[in-house]
Amino acid sequence: MSFHSMWAELLPIGRRSAAGGYRRFAWTGADADCRAWFEQQARSRGLAHEVDRNGNQWAWLGDPAAGNAVVTGSHLDSVPDGGAFDGPLGVVSAFAALDELRHRGARFTRPVGIVNFGDEEGARFGLACVGSRLTAGQLTAEQAHRLTDGDGVTLPRAMAAAGYDPEAIGADPERLDRIGAFVELHVEQGRALDLTGDPVGIASAIWPHGRWRFDFRGEANHAGTTRLADRHDPMLPYAETVLAARREAERAGAVATFGKVAVEPNGVNAVPSLVRGWLDSRAVDQRRLDAVVTGVERAARARAEAHGVALDVARESFTPVVEFDHALRDELARILGKDRDTPLRVPVLGTGAGHDAGILSARVPTAMLFVRNPTGVSHSPAESATEDDCVAGVLALADVLEGLACT
Amino acid sequence: MSFHSMWAELLPIGRRSAAGGYRRFAWTGADADCRAWFEQQARSRGLAHEVDRNGNQWAWLGDPAAGNAVVTGSHLDSVPDGGAFDGPLGVVSAFAALDELRHRGARFTRPVGIVNFGDEEGARFGLACVGSRLTAGQLTAEQAHRLTDGDGVTLPRAMAAAGYDPEAIGADPERLDRIGAFVELHVEQGRALDLTGDPVGIASAIWPHGRWRFDFRGEANHAGTTRLADRHDPMLPYAETVLAARREAERAGAVATFGKVAVEPNGVNAVPSLVRGWLDSRAVDQRRLDAVVTGVERAARARAEAHGVALDVARESFTPVVEFDHALRDELARILGKDRDTPLRVPVLGTGAGHDAGILSARVPTAMLFVRNPTGVSHSPAESATEDDCVAGVLALADVLEGLACT
Repeated sequence: MSFHSMWAELLPIGRRSAAGGYRRFAWTGADADCRAWFEQQARSRGLAHEVDRNGNQWAWLGDPAAGNAVVTGSHLDSVPDGGAFDGPLGVVSAFAALDELRHRGARFTRPVGIVNFGDEEGARFGLACVGSRLTAGQLTAEQAHRLTDGDGVTLPRAMAAAGYDPEAIGADPERLDRIGAFVELHVEQGRALDLTGDPVGIASAIWPHGRWRFDFRGEANHAGTTRLADRHDPMLPYAETVLAARREAERAGAVATFGKVAVEPNGVNAVPSLVRGWLDSRAVDQRRLDAVVTGVERAARARAEAHGVALDVARESFTPVVEFDHALRDELARILGKDRDTPLRVPVLGTGAGHDAGILSARVPTAMLFVRNPTGVSHSPAESATEDDCVAGVLALADVLEGLACT
Repeated sequence: MSFHSMWAELLPIGRRSAAGGYRRFAWTGADADCRAWFEQQARSRGLAHEVDRNGNQWAWLGDPAAGNAVVTGSHLDSVPDGGAFDGPLGVVSAFAALDELRHRGARFTRPVGIVNFGDEEGARFGLACVGSRLTAGQLTAEQAHRLTDGDGVTLPRAMAAAGYDPEAIGADPERLDRIGAFVELHVEQGRALDLTGDPVGIASAIWPHGRWRFDFRGEANHAGTTRLADRHDPMLPYAETVLAARREAERAGAVATFGKVAVEPNGVNAVPSLVRGWLDSRAVDQRRLDAVVTGVERAARARAEAHGVALDVARESFTPVVEFDHALRDELARILGKDRDTPLRVPVLGTGAGHDAGILSARVPTAMLFVRNPTGVSHSPAESATEDDCVAGVLALADVLEGLACT
């Protein structure tokens, strides 16, 4: 089955015609259709198909029990109104790379697996990478059983409704012990490759990132009759903090975003009593991230005090830097940089986004390949990659699998 | 019945123990309790009690059919978690002023009425001054019949459930034609009297005021992977516009508030696609209000353009200046300024808040008295007035009624 026909079968699943984006949430009908597509791809190639205790799908060439397997793949679920490439490009490219290797007549010396991790985006239950976290022991069954979607449906109920056994979920160290290397190919979620002019890059690390909640508490009052001088309006220090976050991020070469706000009482004619804003910030290293967050908090405190507004700052989540395996990364660079018809220049770049590869890297030597995204837009129907770049990604992944798993 | 015992009976009605504020919404049980209190106050003083076609309550000394009546009063309903004085002070003071005049042995030459206008705050159906608007013909029965509360209950259903006839509502010109003067006493909703050091003031005008909706439309994107330079983040020009509104209001001696915001998709890890903010602005005159709104819009457009963000500005509501009747205002100043044991200095001041008196002023010579609010806080449980100032308000209102309606 060709690259084009794989895409032709996958693209209609979970596509919303109105927004043009995808809604492929965990354990829904669209998710089941994606899983059926994956199983069909595996079986049509004579690969052994299995579903692990956490609902992740695997397609095997060779016997994984032999150990030291090379695994590639990604995920098929989407964010709300997401694009076509985030996740699926890594799975489609995995099957296409295997086709390419068979076309080249490659002789495999290690088992090769293709994986579709379940519920990577966390769009339904609010936690990302549920399938890989469970497998790697970073999320317990008890914790997962408490996850609930926006309609009040628990994860166990959703899994059972989709025909899976929620009592079976949990860490799967034997499975991970059989994997010698995991390589995830993913569409880039920024414009680094567009700026360097290269179709494919190698990940160095996932930036440390976190979320901080800023609660500005002032005094509710009448918007028509309260003199400016008598106000304790929390919207003003909030606005100044939004602008400070941009300045601090620019200074540190990081990113910082206030994308979510809650206001009380949120009335047109009321000075607010509370403005709650969430800061998402990520940077190439911990030092720069600390500089951004410290600077934003300092500005927020000064501006809150100037307006007679109280401020509480709470860190809601934090993920330290994930450094991908240096030896594997260097091996990929060596493989992709060696002589061939068109020698490939492969920049090594960090990313601000989380991935299943980031979760697995704690247990397995892990690497990532990125494919150029000319607009850099991500988590949106406008996300894109050219056909030429997708083909370059498949060939690069084939080269990597050949270099790692073939004689 | 004394001033104290009137308050003692009224204060527990609709009080929420948790927040300390009041919830007296139109056509609820708390509203019915307030109405029963009003009727009891009227009957215990031998006043004729009637409810008009729009549910406003009236208590009459003398026959209103004689015409040229002097009416005072205010409202008993509240905003969510409002204070004890906004509305009730005007009704309690009306009954207490009548008691004072009887104590003085005053001889009445004109009918005197006390009114409780229904649904002044608009807390339930979203439109303020429903009772006085209907009576004055500024709201038609058809428009009122379409009003719906947050639970989907229409105004006619709510009125019927409270035992009133929603088919009877509408303009009541005969009733207004019998009124020669309306004087509403109200707790001040700002600190002007606190700053001048006077217990009582006279209203000059209700400031022109309006609401404008600012829609900043950018591009949703990944908060972790989108470079700052590639963003079209509408939160940034929104924040700059909030600060511009404060600057423009300070410059014009006006007020401007962004108290309500809606963000899409409002996700912690998403650059927003839309930030919608509402500007409430009011000023002593139209020229200054125009200066504020023009300045804010100019800043918003410049900042939106700098961020590659689209901006739509829509005026959602606008009320021009209400100038209270000059002859009646001067008469009040003359009455309150004349010799007595403690001559009263009565500043004349504008207000940014709407009132039933503002609605009636289009049809009836109307004036307002304000009682000092030492904190200036309004629409909050922290709203206050000292007992001495409340008594000064009662005596001032008694003087006014005596001057207007007695020999």
